[in-house]
Amino acid sequence: MSPALTTIGFDADDTLWQNEHFYRLTEGRFLELLGEHGDRAALSARLLEAEKRNLALYGFGIKGFTLSMIETAIEITDGRVSGATIAEILAAGREMLRHPVETLPHVRETLETLAGDYAIVLITKGDLFDQERKLAESGLGDLFSAVEIVTRKDAATYARVFAEHGDGAQKSMMVGNSLRSDIVPAIAAGSWAVYVPHPLTWVVEHDEEPVAAPRYRHLEHLGGLIPLISTIGAGHP
Amino acid sequence: MSPALTTIGFDADDTLWQNEHFYRLTEGRFLELLGEHGDRAALSARLLEAEKRNLALYGFGIKGFTLSMIETAIEITDGRVSGATIAEILAAGREMLRHPVETLPHVRETLETLAGDYAIVLITKGDLFDQERKLAESGLGDLFSAVEIVTRKDAATYARVFAEHGDGAQKSMMVGNSLRSDIVPAIAAGSWAVYVPHPLTWVVEHDEEPVAAPRYRHLEHLGGLIPLISTIGAGHP
Repeated sequence: MSPALTTIGFDADDTLWQNEHFYRLTEGRFLELLGEHGDRAALSARLLEAEKRNLALYGFGIKGFTLSMIETAIEITDGRVSGATIAEILAAGREMLRHPVETLPHVRETLETLAGDYAIVLITKGDLFDQERKLAESGLGDLFSAVEIVTRKDAATYARVFAEHGDGAQKSMMVGNSLRSDIVPAIAAGSWAVYVPHPLTWVVEHDEEPVAAPRYRHLEHLGGLIPLISTIGAGHP
Repeated sequence: MSPALTTIGFDADDTLWQNEHFYRLTEGRFLELLGEHGDRAALSARLLEAEKRNLALYGFGIKGFTLSMIETAIEITDGRVSGATIAEILAAGREMLRHPVETLPHVRETLETLAGDYAIVLITKGDLFDQERKLAESGLGDLFSAVEIVTRKDAATYARVFAEHGDGAQKSMMVGNSLRSDIVPAIAAGSWAVYVPHPLTWVVEHDEEPVAAPRYRHLEHLGGLIPLISTIGAGHP
Protein backbone atom coordinates (compact mmCIF):
# COMPACT_ATOMS: atom_id res chain seq x y z
CA MET A 1 0.00 0.00 0.00
CA SER A 2 0.97 3.58 -0.51
CA PRO A 3 3.65 5.06 1.73
CA ALA A 4 2.25 8.51 0.88
CA LEU A 5 -0.93 7.85 2.80
CA THR A 6 -0.69 7.30 6.56
CA THR A 7 -3.99 8.43 8.02
CA ILE A 8 -7.63 7.85 7.12
CA GLY A 9 -10.48 9.83 8.62
CA PHE A 10 -14.01 8.47 8.67
CA ASP A 11 -17.22 10.35 9.15
CA ALA A 12 -19.64 8.50 11.46
CA ASP A 13 -23.35 9.15 10.79
CA ASP A 14 -24.46 7.55 7.51
CA THR A 15 -20.88 6.56 6.71
CA LEU A 16 -20.33 3.96 9.45
CA TRP A 17 -23.89 3.58 10.69
CA GLN A 18 -27.48 4.55 9.86
CA ASN A 19 -28.53 7.94 11.14
CA GLU A 20 -30.65 10.02 8.78
CA HIS A 21 -32.99 7.05 8.49
CA PHE A 22 -34.02 7.57 12.14
CA TYR A 23 -34.53 11.29 11.61
CA ARG A 24 -36.82 10.56 8.66
CA LEU A 25 -38.80 7.99 10.61
CA THR A 26 -39.28 10.44 13.46
CA GLU A 27 -40.18 13.23 11.08
CA GLY A 28 -42.80 10.92 9.56
CA ARG A 29 -44.30 10.37 12.99
CA PHE A 30 -44.25 14.13 13.62
CA LEU A 31 -46.04 14.83 10.33
CA GLU A 32 -48.68 12.26 11.18
CA LEU A 33 -49.26 13.74 14.64
CA LEU A 34 -49.83 17.16 13.09
CA GLY A 35 -51.50 15.97 9.88
CA GLU A 36 -54.68 17.98 10.40
CA HIS A 37 -52.74 21.26 10.39
CA GLY A 38 -51.35 21.16 6.86
CA ASP A 39 -50.10 18.89 4.13
CA ARG A 40 -46.93 16.93 4.68
CA ALA A 41 -44.73 18.97 2.35
CA ALA A 42 -45.66 22.27 3.98
CA LEU A 43 -45.19 20.92 7.51
CA SER A 44 -41.88 19.37 6.57
CA ALA A 45 -40.70 22.70 5.11
CA ARG A 46 -41.64 24.50 8.34
CA LEU A 47 -39.70 21.97 10.38
CA LEU A 48 -36.63 22.34 8.15
CA GLU A 49 -36.88 26.13 8.52
CA ALA A 50 -36.87 25.81 12.31
CA GLU A 51 -33.96 23.38 12.23
CA LYS A 52 -31.87 25.70 10.06
CA ARG A 53 -32.78 28.73 12.17
CA ASN A 54 -31.76 26.90 15.35
CA LEU A 55 -28.58 25.32 14.03
CA ALA A 56 -26.41 28.22 15.18
CA LEU A 57 -27.84 27.84 18.69
CA TYR A 58 -28.40 24.11 19.09
CA GLY A 59 -25.75 22.64 16.81
CA PHE A 60 -26.35 19.21 15.28
CA GLY A 61 -28.06 16.35 17.05
CA ILE A 62 -31.23 14.76 18.30
CA LYS A 63 -31.91 17.08 21.25
CA GLY A 64 -31.90 20.13 19.00
CA PHE A 65 -34.08 18.27 16.48
CA THR A 66 -36.59 17.46 19.23
CA LEU A 67 -36.69 21.09 20.37
CA SER A 68 -37.22 22.22 16.76
CA MET A 69 -40.10 19.76 16.33
CA ILE A 70 -41.77 21.12 19.47
CA GLU A 71 -41.27 24.69 18.30
CA THR A 72 -42.75 23.86 14.89
CA ALA A 73 -45.73 22.10 16.47
CA ILE A 74 -46.53 25.24 18.46
CA GLU A 75 -46.08 27.49 15.42
CA ILE A 76 -48.26 25.58 13.00
CA THR A 77 -51.09 25.13 15.50
CA ASP A 78 -50.96 28.77 16.63
CA GLY A 79 -50.18 27.51 20.11
CA ARG A 80 -53.14 25.13 20.27
CA VAL A 81 -51.08 21.93 20.16
CA SER A 82 -52.04 19.58 23.01
CA GLY A 83 -49.76 18.52 25.83
CA ALA A 84 -50.29 14.94 24.69
CA THR A 85 -48.84 15.73 21.26
CA ILE A 86 -45.81 17.47 22.80
CA ALA A 87 -45.36 14.45 25.05
CA GLU A 88 -45.35 12.22 21.96
CA ILE A 89 -42.68 14.37 20.33
CA LEU A 90 -40.56 14.18 23.50
CA ALA A 91 -40.98 10.40 23.53
CA ALA A 92 -39.98 10.18 19.87
CA GLY A 93 -36.80 12.13 20.62
CA ARG A 94 -35.94 9.89 23.55
CA GLU A 95 -36.52 6.85 21.37
CA MET A 96 -34.04 8.17 18.79
CA LEU A 97 -31.46 8.61 21.54
CA ARG A 98 -31.94 4.97 22.49
CA HIS A 99 -32.11 3.42 19.03
CA PRO A 100 -29.70 0.54 18.49
CA VAL A 101 -26.75 1.27 16.24
CA GLU A 102 -26.98 -0.27 12.77
CA THR A 103 -23.55 -0.54 11.22
CA LEU A 104 -23.54 -0.13 7.42
CA PRO A 105 -22.30 -2.87 5.04
CA HIS A 106 -18.52 -3.40 4.68
CA VAL A 107 -17.74 -1.13 7.63
CA ARG A 108 -16.26 -3.58 10.09
CA GLU A 109 -14.13 -5.54 7.59
CA THR A 110 -12.84 -2.36 6.00
CA LEU A 111 -11.84 -0.77 9.30
CA GLU A 112 -10.27 -4.01 10.56
CA THR A 113 -8.16 -4.33 7.43
CA LEU A 114 -7.04 -0.71 7.40
CA ALA A 115 -6.34 -0.44 11.13
CA GLY A 116 -3.18 -2.53 10.76
CA ASP A 117 -1.60 -0.22 8.17
CA TYR A 118 -3.04 3.23 8.82
CA ALA A 119 -3.98 5.53 11.64
CA ILE A 120 -7.78 5.47 11.57
CA VAL A 121 -9.51 8.55 12.96
CA LEU A 122 -13.21 9.06 13.55
CA ILE A 123 -14.16 12.65 12.70
CA THR A 124 -17.76 13.54 13.39
CA LYS A 125 -20.00 16.46 14.14
CA GLY A 126 -22.97 16.30 16.40
CA ASP A 127 -23.80 15.73 19.98
CA LEU A 128 -20.80 14.53 22.02
CA PHE A 129 -22.90 12.44 24.38
CA ASP A 130 -24.89 10.70 21.66
CA GLN A 131 -21.89 10.12 19.37
CA GLU A 132 -19.93 8.49 22.21
CA ARG A 133 -22.90 6.25 22.95
CA LYS A 134 -23.12 5.16 19.32
CA LEU A 135 -19.39 4.54 19.03
CA ALA A 136 -19.43 2.43 22.20
CA GLU A 137 -22.47 0.50 21.04
CA SER A 138 -21.05 -0.09 17.55
CA GLY A 139 -18.16 -2.08 19.01
CA LEU A 140 -15.84 -0.28 16.54
CA GLY A 141 -14.16 1.95 19.12
CA ASP A 142 -10.97 -0.08 19.44
CA LEU A 143 -10.25 0.19 15.73
CA PHE A 144 -9.77 3.95 15.89
CA SER A 145 -6.51 5.49 17.00
CA ALA A 146 -8.32 8.75 17.73
CA VAL A 147 -11.85 10.09 17.93
CA GLU A 148 -12.58 13.74 17.17
CA ILE A 149 -16.09 14.98 17.86
CA VAL A 150 -16.11 18.51 16.49
CA THR A 151 -18.61 21.34 16.14
CA ARG A 152 -17.69 22.16 12.55
CA LYS A 153 -15.92 20.42 9.70
CA ASP A 154 -14.02 22.97 7.67
CA ALA A 155 -10.59 22.90 6.04
CA ALA A 156 -8.97 24.14 9.28
CA THR A 157 -10.56 21.27 11.19
CA TYR A 158 -9.05 18.69 8.83
CA ALA A 159 -5.67 20.43 8.86
CA ARG A 160 -5.63 20.34 12.67
CA VAL A 161 -6.94 16.81 13.11
CA PHE A 162 -4.65 15.28 10.49
CA ALA A 163 -1.66 17.15 11.95
CA GLU A 164 -2.48 15.97 15.46
CA HIS A 165 -3.28 12.35 14.67
CA GLY A 166 -1.23 11.74 11.55
CA ASP A 167 1.39 13.29 9.28
CA GLY A 168 -0.67 16.19 8.03
CA ALA A 169 -3.55 16.62 5.62
CA GLN A 170 -1.37 15.87 2.56
CA LYS A 171 -0.82 12.31 3.74
CA SER A 172 -4.41 11.81 4.83
CA MET A 173 -7.72 10.77 3.34
CA MET A 174 -11.25 11.64 4.47
CA VAL A 175 -14.14 9.25 3.81
CA GLY A 176 -17.74 10.30 4.22
CA ASN A 177 -21.24 10.79 2.84
CA SER A 178 -21.47 14.57 3.13
CA LEU A 179 -20.03 16.60 0.25
CA ARG A 180 -20.26 19.76 2.32
CA SER A 181 -18.75 18.45 5.57
CA ASP A 182 -16.50 15.56 4.59
CA ILE A 183 -15.40 16.08 1.01
CA VAL A 184 -15.11 19.73 -0.04
CA PRO A 185 -13.24 20.91 3.10
CA ALA A 186 -10.92 17.86 3.13
CA ILE A 187 -9.96 18.57 -0.50
CA ALA A 188 -9.42 22.22 0.46
CA ALA A 189 -7.09 21.09 3.24
CA GLY A 190 -5.02 19.12 0.72
CA SER A 191 -6.22 15.63 1.61
CA TRP A 192 -7.65 12.83 -0.43
CA ALA A 193 -11.43 12.70 -0.12
CA VAL A 194 -13.64 9.72 -0.85
CA TYR A 195 -17.33 10.39 -1.21
CA VAL A 196 -19.52 7.42 -0.36
CA PRO A 197 -23.07 8.70 -0.85
CA HIS A 198 -25.87 7.49 1.39
CA PRO A 199 -29.38 7.36 -0.11
CA LEU A 200 -30.56 9.58 2.75
CA THR A 201 -28.49 12.68 3.39
CA TRP A 202 -29.79 15.82 5.06
CA VAL A 203 -30.27 18.63 2.56
CA VAL A 204 -28.01 20.89 4.63
CA GLU A 205 -25.10 18.56 3.84
CA HIS A 206 -25.41 18.79 0.05
CA ASP A 207 -22.77 20.47 -2.08
CA GLU A 208 -21.20 20.14 -5.51
CA GLU A 209 -18.95 17.19 -6.27
CA PRO A 210 -15.39 18.47 -6.74
CA VAL A 211 -15.03 16.22 -9.80
CA ALA A 212 -12.00 18.10 -11.13
CA ALA A 213 -9.96 17.69 -7.95
CA PRO A 214 -7.19 15.13 -8.56
CA ARG A 215 -7.53 13.73 -5.03
CA TYR A 216 -11.30 13.31 -5.19
CA ARG A 217 -12.89 9.86 -5.55
CA HIS A 218 -16.48 8.62 -5.53
CA LEU A 219 -17.42 5.11 -4.37
CA GLU A 220 -20.79 3.40 -4.42
CA HIS A 221 -20.10 1.69 -1.10
CA LEU A 222 -17.30 1.23 1.42
CA GLY A 223 -16.44 -2.17 -0.05
CA GLY A 224 -14.51 -0.31 -2.75
CA LEU A 225 -12.25 1.55 -0.35
CA ILE A 226 -9.44 -0.96 0.11
CA PRO A 227 -9.00 -1.59 -3.64
CA LEU A 228 -9.00 2.16 -4.17
CA ILE A 229 -6.37 2.80 -1.51
CA SER A 230 -4.13 0.11 -2.94
CA THR A 231 -4.10 1.93 -6.31
CA ILE A 232 -3.01 5.22 -4.74
CA GLY A 233 0.73 5.11 -5.13
CA ALA A 234 3.30 7.55 -3.79
CA GLY A 235 3.65 9.04 -7.25
CA HIS A 236 0.06 10.09 -7.56
CA PRO A 237 -1.05 13.71 -7.02
CA MET B 1 7.66 26.86 41.32
CA SER B 2 7.51 23.15 41.79
CA PRO B 3 9.20 20.93 39.21
CA ALA B 4 6.92 18.13 40.37
CA LEU B 5 3.87 19.80 38.92
CA THR B 6 3.69 20.33 35.15
CA THR B 7 0.02 20.38 34.24
CA ILE B 8 -3.04 22.09 35.66
CA GLY B 9 -6.56 21.16 34.68
CA PHE B 10 -9.44 23.60 35.12
CA ASP B 11 -13.11 22.87 35.18
CA ALA B 12 -15.13 25.45 33.21
CA ASP B 13 -18.71 26.01 34.45
CA ASP B 14 -18.73 27.81 37.81
CA THR B 15 -14.95 27.56 38.04
CA LEU B 16 -14.02 29.92 35.18
CA TRP B 17 -17.42 31.46 34.47
CA GLN B 18 -20.95 31.69 35.86
CA ASN B 19 -23.23 28.83 34.86
CA GLU B 20 -25.52 27.49 37.57
CA HIS B 21 -26.71 31.05 38.13
CA PHE B 22 -28.40 30.96 34.69
CA TYR B 23 -29.99 27.59 35.40
CA ARG B 24 -31.45 28.95 38.65
CA LEU B 25 -32.78 32.06 36.93
CA THR B 26 -34.44 29.94 34.26
CA GLU B 27 -35.83 27.54 36.83
CA GLY B 28 -37.29 30.53 38.65
CA ARG B 29 -39.04 31.60 35.48
CA PHE B 30 -40.29 28.04 34.94
CA LEU B 31 -41.69 27.87 38.49
CA GLU B 32 -43.47 31.18 37.98
CA LEU B 33 -45.00 30.04 34.70
CA LEU B 34 -46.41 26.95 36.41
CA GLY B 35 -47.09 28.53 39.79
CA GLU B 36 -50.80 27.66 39.81
CA HIS B 37 -50.03 23.93 39.61
CA GLY B 38 -48.16 23.50 42.88
CA ASP B 39 -45.85 25.19 45.32
CA ARG B 40 -42.35 26.04 44.24
CA ALA B 41 -40.59 23.36 46.28
CA ALA B 42 -42.77 20.57 44.92
CA LEU B 43 -42.43 21.77 41.30
CA SER B 44 -38.69 22.16 41.71
CA ALA B 45 -38.44 18.61 43.06
CA ARG B 46 -40.39 17.26 40.06
CA LEU B 47 -38.06 19.07 37.68
CA LEU B 48 -34.99 17.68 39.42
CA GLU B 49 -36.48 14.18 39.19
CA ALA B 50 -36.94 14.58 35.44
CA GLU B 51 -33.42 15.94 35.02
CA LYS B 52 -31.89 13.03 36.92
CA ARG B 53 -34.02 10.50 35.03
CA ASN B 54 -32.96 11.98 31.70
CA LEU B 55 -29.28 12.43 32.49
CA ALA B 56 -28.35 9.02 31.09
CA LEU B 57 -30.09 9.90 27.82
CA TYR B 58 -29.49 13.64 27.41
CA GLY B 59 -26.20 14.14 29.22
CA PHE B 60 -25.42 17.53 30.75
CA GLY B 61 -26.39 20.83 29.18
CA ILE B 62 -29.02 23.38 28.37
CA LYS B 63 -30.84 21.47 25.62
CA GLY B 64 -31.47 18.53 27.93
CA PHE B 65 -32.54 20.92 30.70
CA THR B 66 -35.04 22.56 28.33
CA LEU B 67 -36.46 19.17 27.32
CA SER B 68 -36.77 18.19 31.00
CA MET B 69 -38.62 21.44 31.78
CA ILE B 70 -41.09 20.76 28.97
CA GLU B 71 -41.59 17.19 30.15
CA THR B 72 -42.20 18.37 33.72
CA ALA B 73 -44.66 21.04 32.56
CA ILE B 74 -46.72 18.37 30.79
CA GLU B 75 -46.56 16.01 33.78
CA ILE B 76 -47.62 18.45 36.47
CA THR B 77 -50.50 19.85 34.41
CA ASP B 78 -51.72 16.40 33.37
CA GLY B 79 -51.12 17.43 29.78
CA ARG B 80 -53.13 20.64 30.00
CA VAL B 81 -50.17 23.00 29.71
CA SER B 82 -50.73 25.59 26.98
CA GLY B 83 -48.69 25.95 23.83
CA ALA B 84 -47.87 29.49 24.94
CA THR B 85 -46.25 28.18 28.14
CA ILE B 86 -44.21 25.60 26.22
CA ALA B 87 -43.14 28.37 23.83
CA GLU B 88 -41.96 30.40 26.83
CA ILE B 89 -39.91 27.46 28.09
CA LEU B 90 -38.33 27.05 24.64
CA ALA B 91 -37.53 30.76 24.57
CA ALA B 92 -35.97 30.56 28.04
CA GLY B 93 -33.75 27.70 26.87
CA ARG B 94 -32.66 29.63 23.78
CA GLU B 95 -31.90 32.64 25.94
CA MET B 96 -29.63 30.54 28.14
CA LEU B 97 -27.76 29.37 25.05
CA ARG B 98 -27.17 32.98 24.09
CA HIS B 99 -26.32 34.43 27.49
CA PRO B 100 -23.06 36.39 27.59
CA VAL B 101 -20.19 34.68 29.37
CA GLU B 102 -19.37 36.15 32.79
CA THR B 103 -15.85 35.25 33.80
CA LEU B 104 -15.39 34.78 37.55
CA PRO B 105 -12.98 36.92 39.63
CA HIS B 106 -9.22 36.19 39.42
CA VAL B 107 -9.67 33.86 36.44
CA ARG B 108 -7.86 35.75 33.71
CA GLU B 109 -4.86 36.87 35.81
CA THR B 110 -4.46 33.39 37.27
CA LEU B 111 -4.53 31.65 33.91
CA GLU B 112 -2.21 34.23 32.32
CA THR B 113 0.34 33.78 35.10
CA LEU B 114 0.20 29.99 35.07
CA ALA B 115 0.22 29.59 31.28
CA GLY B 116 3.91 30.52 31.11
CA ASP B 117 5.03 27.78 33.48
CA TYR B 118 2.49 24.99 33.16
CA ALA B 119 0.42 23.19 30.58
CA ILE B 120 -3.09 24.48 31.23
CA VAL B 121 -5.91 22.15 30.21
CA LEU B 122 -9.62 22.88 30.20
CA ILE B 123 -11.54 19.78 31.27
CA THR B 124 -15.29 20.11 31.17
CA LYS B 125 -18.44 18.08 30.83
CA GLY B 126 -21.51 19.26 29.06
CA ASP B 127 -22.62 20.14 25.62
CA LEU B 128 -19.75 20.37 23.12
CA PHE B 129 -21.38 23.07 21.05
CA ASP B 130 -22.28 25.29 24.00
CA GLN B 131 -18.95 24.83 25.78
CA GLU B 132 -17.03 25.80 22.64
CA ARG B 133 -19.19 28.90 22.29
CA LYS B 134 -18.50 29.92 25.89
CA LEU B 135 -14.78 29.30 25.59
CA ALA B 136 -14.60 31.39 22.42
CA GLU B 137 -16.66 34.16 23.97
CA SER B 138 -14.61 34.18 27.18
CA GLY B 139 -11.49 35.14 25.25
CA LEU B 140 -9.54 32.65 27.39
CA GLY B 141 -9.08 30.06 24.63
CA ASP B 142 -5.48 30.93 23.78
CA LEU B 143 -4.32 30.37 27.36
CA PHE B 144 -5.11 26.65 27.22
CA SER B 145 -2.73 24.19 25.67
CA ALA B 146 -5.58 21.71 25.32
CA VAL B 147 -9.35 21.57 25.69
CA GLU B 148 -11.09 18.35 26.66
CA ILE B 149 -14.86 18.31 26.55
CA VAL B 150 -15.81 14.94 27.99
CA THR B 151 -19.00 13.06 28.79
CA ARG B 152 -17.88 11.92 32.22
CA LYS B 153 -15.25 12.92 34.73
CA ASP B 154 -13.98 9.86 36.54
CA ALA B 155 -10.50 8.78 37.63
CA ALA B 156 -9.90 7.15 34.23
CA THR B 157 -10.74 10.42 32.48
CA TYR B 158 -8.15 12.32 34.52
CA ALA B 159 -5.54 9.59 34.03
CA ARG B 160 -6.05 9.73 30.24
CA VAL B 161 -6.21 13.52 29.90
CA PHE B 162 -3.17 14.17 32.10
CA ALA B 163 -1.20 11.47 30.27
CA GLU B 164 -2.11 12.92 26.88
CA HIS B 165 -1.56 16.58 27.68
CA GLY B 166 1.02 16.42 30.47
CA ASP B 167 3.30 14.04 32.34
CA GLY B 168 0.63 11.95 33.97
CA ALA B 169 -1.84 12.42 36.79
CA GLN B 170 0.89 12.37 39.47
CA LYS B 171 2.38 15.58 38.11
CA SER B 172 -0.97 17.24 37.57
CA MET B 173 -3.51 19.26 39.50
CA MET B 174 -7.25 19.61 38.94
CA VAL B 175 -9.07 22.79 39.95
CA GLY B 176 -12.85 22.96 40.15
CA ASN B 177 -16.06 23.61 42.02
CA SER B 178 -17.54 20.11 41.90
CA LEU B 179 -16.42 17.67 44.59
CA ARG B 180 -17.95 14.81 42.66
CA SER B 181 -16.63 15.60 39.19
CA ASP B 182 -13.44 17.60 39.73
CA ILE B 183 -12.04 16.68 43.12
CA VAL B 184 -12.80 13.12 44.21
CA PRO B 185 -11.91 11.46 40.88
CA ALA B 186 -8.75 13.58 40.41
CA ILE B 187 -7.55 12.52 43.86
CA ALA B 188 -8.36 8.92 42.95
CA ALA B 189 -6.23 9.29 39.81
CA GLY B 190 -3.27 10.42 41.94
CA SER B 191 -3.42 14.14 41.13
CA TRP B 192 -3.54 17.21 43.26
CA ALA B 193 -7.08 18.55 43.54
CA VAL B 194 -8.05 22.07 44.51
CA TYR B 195 -11.66 22.63 45.44
CA VAL B 196 -12.89 26.18 44.84
CA PRO B 197 -16.54 26.09 45.90
CA HIS B 198 -19.11 28.19 44.07
CA PRO B 199 -22.12 29.41 46.08
CA LEU B 200 -24.37 27.75 43.50
CA THR B 201 -23.52 24.17 42.66
CA TRP B 202 -26.01 21.66 41.28
CA VAL B 203 -26.99 19.10 43.91
CA VAL B 204 -25.92 16.26 41.59
CA GLU B 205 -22.33 17.53 41.87
CA HIS B 206 -22.11 17.34 45.66
CA ASP B 207 -19.86 14.85 47.43
CA GLU B 208 -17.77 14.58 50.57
CA GLU B 209 -14.61 16.63 50.87
CA PRO B 210 -11.62 14.26 50.86
CA VAL B 211 -10.10 16.20 53.76
CA ALA B 212 -7.68 13.43 54.68
CA ALA B 213 -6.12 13.20 51.21
CA PRO B 214 -2.61 14.71 51.31
CA ARG B 215 -3.02 16.22 47.83
CA TYR B 216 -6.37 17.84 48.55
CA ARG B 217 -6.69 21.60 49.04
CA HIS B 218 -9.65 23.94 49.54
CA LEU B 219 -9.57 27.58 48.43
CA GLU B 220 -12.15 30.29 48.93
CA HIS B 221 -11.45 31.76 45.50
CA LEU B 222 -9.08 31.35 42.56
CA GLY B 223 -6.96 34.25 43.80
CA GLY B 224 -5.35 31.81 46.25
CA LEU B 225 -4.21 29.37 43.57
CA ILE B 226 -0.83 30.84 42.61
CA PRO B 227 0.35 31.24 46.24
CA LEU B 228 -0.81 27.67 46.88
CA ILE B 229 1.06 26.27 43.88
CA SER B 230 4.24 28.06 44.88
CA THR B 231 4.17 26.27 48.26
CA ILE B 232 3.89 22.85 46.64
CA GLY B 233 7.52 21.77 46.45
CA ALA B 234 8.93 18.69 44.79
CA GLY B 235 9.32 17.08 48.20
CA HIS B 236 5.62 17.20 49.07
CA PRO B 237 3.38 14.14 48.79
